[in-house]
Amino acid sequence: MATGRTTTTFLPPVMEARRWLEGVEFPPERPLINVSQAAPVDPPPESLRKVIAEAAMNQPEAHLYGPVLGLPELRAQVAQEWSTAYGGDLSAENVAITSGCNQAFCATIAALCSDHDEVILPTPWYFNHKMWLDMSGITTVPLQTGADLLPDPGAAKDLITKRTKAIVLVTPNNPGGVEYPSELVQAFFELAQKHNIALIIDETYRNFDARTGAPHTLFQDPEWDKTLIQLYSFSKAFRLTGHRVGAITADPALLTEIEKFLDTVAICPNQLGQMAAIWGMQNLTQWLAGERDEILDRRAAIHDNFHKVEDKGWKLLGCAAYFAYVEHPFDLPSDQLAREMVRDLGVLMLPGTMFHPEDTPRAAREFRVAFANVDREQISVLFDRLAQADWPRVKT
Amino acid sequence: MATGRTTTTFLPPVMEARRWLEGVEFPPERPLINVSQAAPVDPPPESLRKVIAEAAMNQPEAHLYGPVLGLPELRAQVAQEWSTAYGGDLSAENVAITSGCNQAFCATIAALCSDHDEVILPTPWYFNHKMWLDMSGITTVPLQTGADLLPDPGAAKDLITKRTKAIVLVTPNNPGGVEYPSELVQAFFELAQKHNIALIIDETYRNFDARTGAPHTLFQDPEWDKTLIQLYSFSKAFRLTGHRVGAITADPALLTEIEKFLDTVAICPNQLGQMAAIWGMQNLTQWLAGERDEILDRRAAIHDNFHKVEDKGWKLLGCAAYFAYVEHPFDLPSDQLAREMVRDLGVLMLPGTMFHPEDTPRAAREFRVAFANVDREQISVLFDRLAQADWPRVKT
Repeated sequence: MATGRTTTTFLPPVMEARRWLEGVEFPPERPLINVSQAAPVDPPPESLRKVIAEAAMNQPEAHLYGPVLGLPELRAQVAQEWSTAYGGDLSAENVAITSGCNQAFCATIAALCSDHDEVILPTPWYFNHKMWLDMSGITTVPLQTGADLLPDPGAAKDLITKRTKAIVLVTPNNPGGVEYPSELVQAFFELAQKHNIALIIDETYRNFDARTGAPHTLFQDPEWDKTLIQLYSFSKAFRLTGHRVGAITADPALLTEIEKFLDTVAICPNQLGQMAAIWGMQNLTQWLAGERDEILDRRAAIHDNFHKVEDKGWKLLGCAAYFAYVEHPFDLPSDQLAREMVRDLGVLMLPGTMFHPEDTPRAAREFRVAFANVDREQISVLFDRLAQADWPRVKT
Repeated sequence: MATGRTTTTFLPPVMEARRWLEGVEFPPERPLINVSQAAPVDPPPESLRKVIAEAAMNQPEAHLYGPVLGLPELRAQVAQEWSTAYGGDLSAENVAITSGCNQAFCATIAALCSDHDEVILPTPWYFNHKMWLDMSGITTVPLQTGADLLPDPGAAKDLITKRTKAIVLVTPNNPGGVEYPSELVQAFFELAQKHNIALIIDETYRNFDARTGAPHTLFQDPEWDKTLIQLYSFSKAFRLTGHRVGAITADPALLTEIEKFLDTVAICPNQLGQMAAIWGMQNLTQWLAGERDEILDRRAAIHDNFHKVEDKGWKLLGCAAYFAYVEHPFDLPSDQLAREMVRDLGVLMLPGTMFHPEDTPRAAREFRVAFANVDREQISVLFDRLAQADWPRVKT
């Protein structure tokens, strides 16, 4: 029966990786270190859980349909916080709430692109972006990055055709673990502006950017909404992954188009999650700062421990927000190696093959390490285990 | 910027109708009677709200990502209840949980159809189905029904081409308010089976079917999963519209395709809503029976009050589950009349033009009355108001 759009894309990588764990035993003295998924493993703080519980008990509207584009209070809150953070002048009409940031991307693409259109995606890419473009009949044009994992606006320019509708940036980058410099983001904005295409910036990990101040100044451009569409997720900041709440900041006219998609695919974002996001934004600033400190400390722990494998030929290509992106020294493709690592080292990480177009040579050498869920101690153990690995090495 | 798939379809009808209320004052002695949306206006019973609140406080996993296809316990619960209700032998692997029943439809279509494929949809149709088919580049082939609003398998047969991938039935029907007889559903199943296409049955309103026993026996066919895909919503049964929980019952191989869509568009259904659905299915059978009685009483109230307008030329075409579907006697198109009714009668109902292809003559004569939110007293007042209407009449 299945002859539809879904057949044009691959199986969800996170689930494929989860299947590699099946039937493998992890002895108590060497428990699994799972650095495959970028998600909190702890619930939100008790104060926020209490807010959700109280809303469930006492706010009838928590259980009923809400507006397609989200609760007005949350839209206004995002507009206000972004205005301060980026130095812009946004209003609630610029913001749509979605059922998670994946859906924010899907809705945006549905409003911008039709069959046979092209979207430029730097590699390594976020696989769900690729999956949606596949399923939408859109050609993904890979923009290869170099060793620094930063996309080059000049190279992007050469990829633009009459069918190009958008360039997508993810910063801080998943899977690359790099924070795109403000000037680089600006250069992409100007490139998109000049070619009258959209610049989509997925800032899911913005709360864990190590830099202080605005990561870019695009919202200060009075014409930003003619080019820029920014995506965000409340999942990481407030540990609300199970509630599915994300946001799109864009031109209100575009949001009217996006509203058609959201109405049809979701009707509305779930209400309790939105209420949690409002309260979190209004009351958890201090708590979130502590979360960021913890993530930055884990990032530092990656740097502190990397020496254990560096002299064995590993390279740290990127390290920011939730992710380290690494090159391994072994003469085995990363997708095969990933499975052997589960068995031999008790480590699960996603292979580079999941983040590149098929048959990209470098993909076989790369891994993403999603370190947000493992503390300093586990990060140390992780690198001890990687240091013990003795597969045949690539000849250099 | 918006040149994408969304531009191929219309604005969400429910929201358009809501805009008709703007600037209109409803005096206290004649408050608005809103029969435009098919949704509960009250929250779930306190016992269920308590379950949600307790899960929010005490179950960490309530806030974290869950499986793409939904919580195993909920999938198993649906399989078990459906097996009993329909006399089949379903297992958890046959069930996927979605973020609402609209999403269940979208995911199913994405797995079954590609650009330029065709799907047969009886008219009057559910507009979000049409919107998704439009956005997916699929040709909607309208199957016109007669005065009884029942689709004819013979007429459907003549519409099947090489590009036809599915026939969609909604029973009890939205917007038509008719319960499709078991034999009719069976005939469509056999038609689909014979032509090797899918039969999608949306049973969102199954809990409010006036008939006792199984509404169809398709799940008893050992080969059901080669043809049938059933959609369901927990929103109406347990008043969980704001939580977004629905279900697909289908062949596990098809669900593997559907999983790609759900992973990309939603990652997972929200967890608290799923926990609420599990508890509801396990504990609210008795309460739900009371809800059904109430809806059946409102349905009876429609019949009891219809005489007030019948001699003025109105016709009751269908009346079941949440909906009455009516023909009005006025010489004004229903979309214009709908707006005048808001102002002149304080009544909001959706015009037939929202449920038919453009320029369908009968659409101008029809209205959907979503009566689930109005009690017997309000239904009586509704028909008193309609009886007073004195627009020019169609000459007969």
